[in-house]
Amino acid sequence: MKLCRYGAPGAEKPGLIDAEGRIRDLSAHVADIGPDALGKDALARLAAIDPASLKLVEGDVRYGACVGGTRQFIAIGTNFADHAAESNLPVPEEPVVFQKWVSCIQGPNDPVTIPKDSKKTDWEVELGVVIGTTASYVSEEDALDYVAGYCVINDVSERHWQVERGLTWDKGKGFPTFGPIGPWMVTKDEVGDPQDLGMWLSVNGKKMQNGNSKTMIFTVAQIVAYCSQFMTLLPGDVITTGTPPGVGLGQKPEPWYLKAGDVVELGIEKLGEQRQEFVAWQAAK
Amino acid sequence: MKLCRYGAPGAEKPGLIDAEGRIRDLSAHVADIGPDALGKDALARLAAIDPASLKLVEGDVRYGACVGGTRQFIAIGTNFADHAAESNLPVPEEPVVFQKWVSCIQGPNDPVTIPKDSKKTDWEVELGVVIGTTASYVSEEDALDYVAGYCVINDVSERHWQVERGLTWDKGKGFPTFGPIGPWMVTKDEVGDPQDLGMWLSVNGKKMQNGNSKTMIFTVAQIVAYCSQFMTLLPGDVITTGTPPGVGLGQKPEPWYLKAGDVVELGIEKLGEQRQEFVAWQAAK
Repeated sequence: MKLCRYGAPGAEKPGLIDAEGRIRDLSAHVADIGPDALGKDALARLAAIDPASLKLVEGDVRYGACVGGTRQFIAIGTNFADHAAESNLPVPEEPVVFQKWVSCIQGPNDPVTIPKDSKKTDWEVELGVVIGTTASYVSEEDALDYVAGYCVINDVSERHWQVERGLTWDKGKGFPTFGPIGPWMVTKDEVGDPQDLGMWLSVNGKKMQNGNSKTMIFTVAQIVAYCSQFMTLLPGDVITTGTPPGVGLGQKPEPWYLKAGDVVELGIEKLGEQRQEFVAWQAAK
Repeated sequence: MKLCRYGAPGAEKPGLIDAEGRIRDLSAHVADIGPDALGKDALARLAAIDPASLKLVEGDVRYGACVGGTRQFIAIGTNFADHAAESNLPVPEEPVVFQKWVSCIQGPNDPVTIPKDSKKTDWEVELGVVIGTTASYVSEEDALDYVAGYCVINDVSERHWQVERGLTWDKGKGFPTFGPIGPWMVTKDEVGDPQDLGMWLSVNGKKMQNGNSKTMIFTVAQIVAYCSQFMTLLPGDVITTGTPPGVGLGQKPEPWYLKAGDVVELGIEKLGEQRQEFVAWQAAK
């Protein structure tokens, strides 16, 4: 099952993608694709609905982030050995964990704003994990029981603020618009093995990242179990699990970064695609 | 004006502290002390109410966190030069920023659970700043316009996970129950200068921290302005601004930490006091 949120920013409605790829309106059945809709029973109720019974959404609509009400946006760093190498970072012995501010979350195709004065705005295609059930001290064996589904995330990163402004990465990871999530949350049953998904990203049509979740250092199950040892994972929380090589920071002979007008497209097998135009920062009027 | 939230966990009601220190029920006027109640106009409406017109809350009630609906719980590290020294960290040239998971937020007097197998659970009295109005790219001069008020926070920290488990601090800062906030949010007008507030913390009756916000390296205004350069601060967000010296990690000749049965009391001038019993972790039944 593919679930989505569509409509104007802040006023998204819940939707379901039918077999023809069209959006069907779920708002008669659930208020939002958020914490209350992601548990096993809630998802089973949605799965039992005949898509043909749902109103077809006509026309060209905006996708919002595929999950609403996210309270914790957790990120795993350097989770591909070859990306660690291009970033001049050691292969971690346990997951590197940071946070993206939830205020950066937006729709998958909304424009991304290059921060004021930024010269190092970078891309990162990542597999997103949506938590369905509260998880605390869960084992790796049980961890996927707490996952509702998966989605595409661009973990947009500003490298100057991430690595040159002192100690923690969080400063460079959550600028406004830096968290495109979606277009859909695809439920776990439909995805199958999360460790065998092709991932790609292009800039202005040129393929920059081309990887597969099979080369992640820590698997989704390991990451969920690990995070649950030091925090309570809540329904609707999103974990972005690290990027394969090919980011701007890792380009040879020199890193290069995004500028206004650049278009980034990215996708993950079974999970859909995103497209963002990067735009210059402008002072609020 | 002192605002609070009282009642059972997850079902807190909004309250106001009257001149005699008693709780008055605000629920006829506002749904929660949260994002919608913290803007200038909303606070002015609450300030215009005659406390005597509000129902007195009788009996011994629990305080919840004084702000509900917090979406971002931002923390500033090593913001007192003498605490930086005791932690063997350099005095930072700009604020060190990390996050506490919002799932750790709880009432000011609720028990704190020492995490499973933890031997390094530590205390930190801190001045909390509650954001009232969305802030992005604001100047230091204007920064306090975006602040609704202040509160006491114990930035409970697990030092093993904070510093020995790889790269970022977030792992050690947001275990469940590690975010006692309150008892009250005291509005900005009633606090006056946030850079002249006495701060103290005791463990089992022994004074361990005794400081003043006047020795903070970065002021509240500087911190708010700084954070707004790389994120959007939202109403209801809480910034905990760093601790003075005297934490367990800094004890000589050896660090020592909290154990089950220890009682931590802490307070900040004008902002009230907290009291937590530290308890052993137990597996969920």
